[in-house]
Amino acid sequence: MFDDVYEVIHARRDVRGEFTGAPIPTEVLDRVLAAAHAAPSVGLSQPWDFILVRDPALRAEFHRHVQQERDVFAAGLHGEEARRFSRIKIDGVLESTLSVVVTYDPDRGSPAVLGRHAIADAGLYSVCLAIQNLWLAATAERLGVGWVSFYREPFVQDLLRIPAGVRPVAWLCLGPVTHLEQVPDLERHGWRQRRPWRAAVHRDRWERSGH
Amino acid sequence: MFDDVYEVIHARRDVRGEFTGAPIPTEVLDRVLAAAHAAPSVGLSQPWDFILVRDPALRAEFHRHVQQERDVFAAGLHGEEARRFSRIKIDGVLESTLSVVVTYDPDRGSPAVLGRHAIADAGLYSVCLAIQNLWLAATAERLGVGWVSFYREPFVQDLLRIPAGVRPVAWLCLGPVTHLEQVPDLERHGWRQRRPWRAAVHRDRWERSGH
Repeated sequence: MFDDVYEVIHARRDVRGEFTGAPIPTEVLDRVLAAAHAAPSVGLSQPWDFILVRDPALRAEFHRHVQQERDVFAAGLHGEEARRFSRIKIDGVLESTLSVVVTYDPDRGSPAVLGRHAIADAGLYSVCLAIQNLWLAATAERLGVGWVSFYREPFVQDLLRIPAGVRPVAWLCLGPVTHLEQVPDLERHGWRQRRPWRAAVHRDRWERSGH
Repeated sequence: MFDDVYEVIHARRDVRGEFTGAPIPTEVLDRVLAAAHAAPSVGLSQPWDFILVRDPALRAEFHRHVQQERDVFAAGLHGEEARRFSRIKIDGVLESTLSVVVTYDPDRGSPAVLGRHAIADAGLYSVCLAIQNLWLAATAERLGVGWVSFYREPFVQDLLRIPAGVRPVAWLCLGPVTHLEQVPDLERHGWRQRRPWRAAVHRDRWERSGH
């Protein structure tokens, strides 16, 4: 385990191809989930849930769906873009140790969720903060995390019997990895380059750009 | 600075009342922003921007708007709930060193954002991951962060001249603090209790609850 916060933040990767499938000790998984649950949330609503999906049949069914959605996306690409995409692995659902599906329940803490009356999506934002806590804790434990987003929400809802009104936000693959790549997959495969962080910083107002 | 990832994750608080207004050294702010920018993003789109708001006039104008929205929320509460809310401080806009407004630009990396064709909100999720990176890096630097959500998005858009189509996702107060509370403000004030993390964990399907 490496523990410097900055080291972990910068070493973290979105993992597709490096999962080994080795088991995760219970106490490690517990620490990672407790870290996710320690995220801030609007009105202290803690609107997230975590479904640990180990069942190989469920994962295989999800994986087939992901492949179909990959084909949907690929059909919109042409030329060099299509060729680049064909080389990119988009998920590690079958190879990783387990999946963690993170959901959002808008009814938790309602009706008066403090801080949500003006911004309907604030609860959804909270769920994402928990996901990043999970991701960093897992990285500190030298586990890999890969967020799969090639799926339709109703499919996951049906597959995992998620109640109506509760929304799946993320399908995360989790487990030990051979290593974490230094450069994001999409950059290594020439899909897209990272931009310098200073380009994202503005002063006082949007148009006064430049750090 | 304390650096253990778990220590930082569990010490992190949503700060309202403990800001000192002391300056933040440039290199510290740079580290925090670079950490935010190191977050994962759908299709490596990095759709976030950070507007550093120091101008006291802008902050005062935002603060007046927040007070109005506080009144809107308070008007929907009754009895004990209204009394509890009246004791809760909802922002540190005036007392903190600066504000960081985090935005989402859906056009960045489009039209073919890899992994976003099936889930329209995936770009918004990426922005939240950057926010949590910022929050943890700031906590590691012993700075406080407070997410203010008592505002209307169009108000912030006008105030900071954010272009149409770019969405403000968070108004964060940032700066040195006297201390971080051990227990979240809303729990200390009896607004809401945290639930145990194991209650949020399910196995394979939603209904097979319990860890």
